Amino acid sequence: MSAPFARPSASIATPRIHRTRRERLRLDVAPSSKSAVPTTTTTRLPAPTVHRASVPTRAHARGGATSSAATSSGASSPVSASSPLGVHALVWTGGWSEADAHDACARTAAAGYDIIEIPLLNPSSVDVAMTKNALAAHGLRVATSLGLSFDADVSSDDLSIVAKGNELLDAALDVSVGIGATHMCGILYSALGKYPNGCTATGRANAVAAIKRLAKKAADTSDVVLGLEVVNRYETNLLNTAEQAMAFLNDVDEPNVKIHLDTYHMNIEERSLEAAVVLCGDRLGYVHVGESDRGALGMGNVDFDSLFRGLRRVDYDGPITFESFSSDVVSPDLSDVLCIWRNPWGFEQRDELAVDARSFVLGMMDKHGLR
Amino acid sequence: MSAPFARPSASIATPRIHRTRRERLRLDVAPSSKSAVPTTTTTRLPAPTVHRASVPTRAHARGGATSSAATSSGASSPVSASSPLGVHALVWTGGWSEADAHDACARTAAAGYDIIEIPLLNPSSVDVAMTKNALAAHGLRVATSLGLSFDADVSSDDLSIVAKGNELLDAALDVSVGIGATHMCGILYSALGKYPNGCTATGRANAVAAIKRLAKKAADTSDVVLGLEVVNRYETNLLNTAEQAMAFLNDVDEPNVKIHLDTYHMNIEERSLEAAVVLCGDRLGYVHVGESDRGALGMGNVDFDSLFRGLRRVDYDGPITFESFSSDVVSPDLSDVLCIWRNPWGFEQRDELAVDARSFVLGMMDKHGLR
Repeated sequence: MSAPFARPSASIATPRIHRTRRERLRLDVAPSSKSAVPTTTTTRLPAPTVHRASVPTRAHARGGATSSAATSSGASSPVSASSPLGVHALVWTGGWSEADAHDACARTAAAGYDIIEIPLLNPSSVDVAMTKNALAAHGLRVATSLGLSFDADVSSDDLSIVAKGNELLDAALDVSVGIGATHMCGILYSALGKYPNGCTATGRANAVAAIKRLAKKAADTSDVVLGLEVVNRYETNLLNTAEQAMAFLNDVDEPNVKIHLDTYHMNIEERSLEAAVVLCGDRLGYVHVGESDRGALGMGNVDFDSLFRGLRRVDYDGPITFESFSSDVVSPDLSDVLCIWRNPWGFEQRDELAVDARSFVLGMMDKHGLR
Repeated sequence: MSAPFARPSASIATPRIHRTRRERLRLDVAPSSKSAVPTTTTTRLPAPTVHRASVPTRAHARGGATSSAATSSGASSPVSASSPLGVHALVWTGGWSEADAHDACARTAAAGYDIIEIPLLNPSSVDVAMTKNALAAHGLRVATSLGLSFDADVSSDDLSIVAKGNELLDAALDVSVGIGATHMCGILYSALGKYPNGCTATGRANAVAAIKRLAKKAADTSDVVLGLEVVNRYETNLLNTAEQAMAFLNDVDEPNVKIHLDTYHMNIEERSLEAAVVLCGDRLGYVHVGESDRGALGMGNVDFDSLFRGLRRVDYDGPITFESFSSDVVSPDLSDVLCIWRNPWGFEQRDELAVDARSFVLGMMDKHGLR
């Protein structure tokens, strides 16, 4: 999308309630003069006055990000000395053409993020040289993520399916190293989807061996950290809790493999977000912040205070990346895998969504002494 | 199970922490002298001193059920004047033989519940006369519940599959009426499971027609209330929120069809449990209380204060039924459908689980002025 985007007419958080602050937000992405690829950004975010206090949410009731905390952290503030903040590319686009890449990177930078997370469900769809250019043009760091498919699943009992899983992981690692990713995360150990039954001991052993092999390969060629994402029961049958992930990590026994926690999944599977973070300790390497309905951050049931208390207790300084899905952006296939049967936000609201999410995270970091 | 059961050696809530109060609990179900079917119960529950305060849970941090509130409502207290309390039969047993039925009913009554909810996933497996006897022997009310299957799904586009769904609903209604159920609940409008894609307009219309037909049939023969359970995106593609359920109910337009909310699912899909309840208002007919990990009540991420605030605001006086699943009890097939890949509690802990859950609900009802 090369044209300056229109301001959304309704709020993501409360679609039917007009919030005047939206009218004061100005975040313009100017297209370059040639090839319809935006390469320069103009950010005009005059310390957004985030009136979360006016929206009666649970996050607020628990003492969520305050107006003043959010206001103190405009998108033009320097990269925090502690955790870099990221946003998932699927907030912006479902494709990765040159135009997609530059648009997504421009919006990531304009919204004040340090990192863009690029999905590698199909690694060959990512042009390494073009992606490096887009990242450099917008001064971004990069992480990657994927989930395996049922026909390329390293936790299968079937060694031919495990072999295809290893090939997929190798292809994703090659792209990750090629584009200079700091982290390669996600469901690297299992298919992303609803399993028909539980994982077998053989399947788990195959997954451990595959991750160990991948970790050695990653260490031989790069500083890429592998992050094993712990997801809910409907998206894997193997690692649903931090406790399971720690046991798996102990079996893998490679220093460049870390745990990747995601609040959307933790809200379903962990009894306490804080306890899960503390259990991981310095083995925690990547964090996804997502809301309970996969929508606007701070507007649902996730206990973010508990998460950030935990992050403070373990002095976490790794990436914190915002993830949210709308089938307005995500491909139909992935929407069906993720069961996105309704959209928490529309395509035109994605900039507002990302700016709000970053403000919310910074407010939480301030509140809990994380920066 | 006819032999007096052993006391669990570890707590459900904190399996590795010894809690001495468990040793003070005495809840004995004595078997009858013949046919290994327990028909008499001996309840000795001396006002259990529930020391939730000693367990650092979020529910407690939010001001959950206090020790004194829980203590004031022993299992031998009379049925509350407001909401009757229920427990799902799958807390006790995966089968429904005469021995299963009597054992489950005995334990339900001994734990102080008013209602047992009997699953009708396979209606023909429930012997109507035997079940009536078991219910009467233990002085219980009864509700039923089910979810449809993909080959008998009234929300299908395929009319032959819709017809099979109607047959399954008719069979379940016949059993429900036969055993004197007050409510027939669950995913009556859809298959229980992970859909490969979203529901079509035709599928939704078929579901509306099927529920309208069933409602008229139920009204012609009984006072059974139909409850449409709102469940998470991985267990239906049709009604994931109270808002969707209200729209569906308006289209059905039959007074004996109500909404059935479940906190496990609300924690994933609703932004506010209180708002969801208030949106339903007097169309809310049945409530499941389940924890975020489907385990012990009050130990996870569900915002029960929000739920009970909502119930108070709408003066809810319908059933409140506890639901929790362990593959120690649930059949392997249903465990796989529900993705029970790990067990939050063991078979021997089910009495403790049920007694604790009831105490927690009563504490919440007291706190929020619901009785």
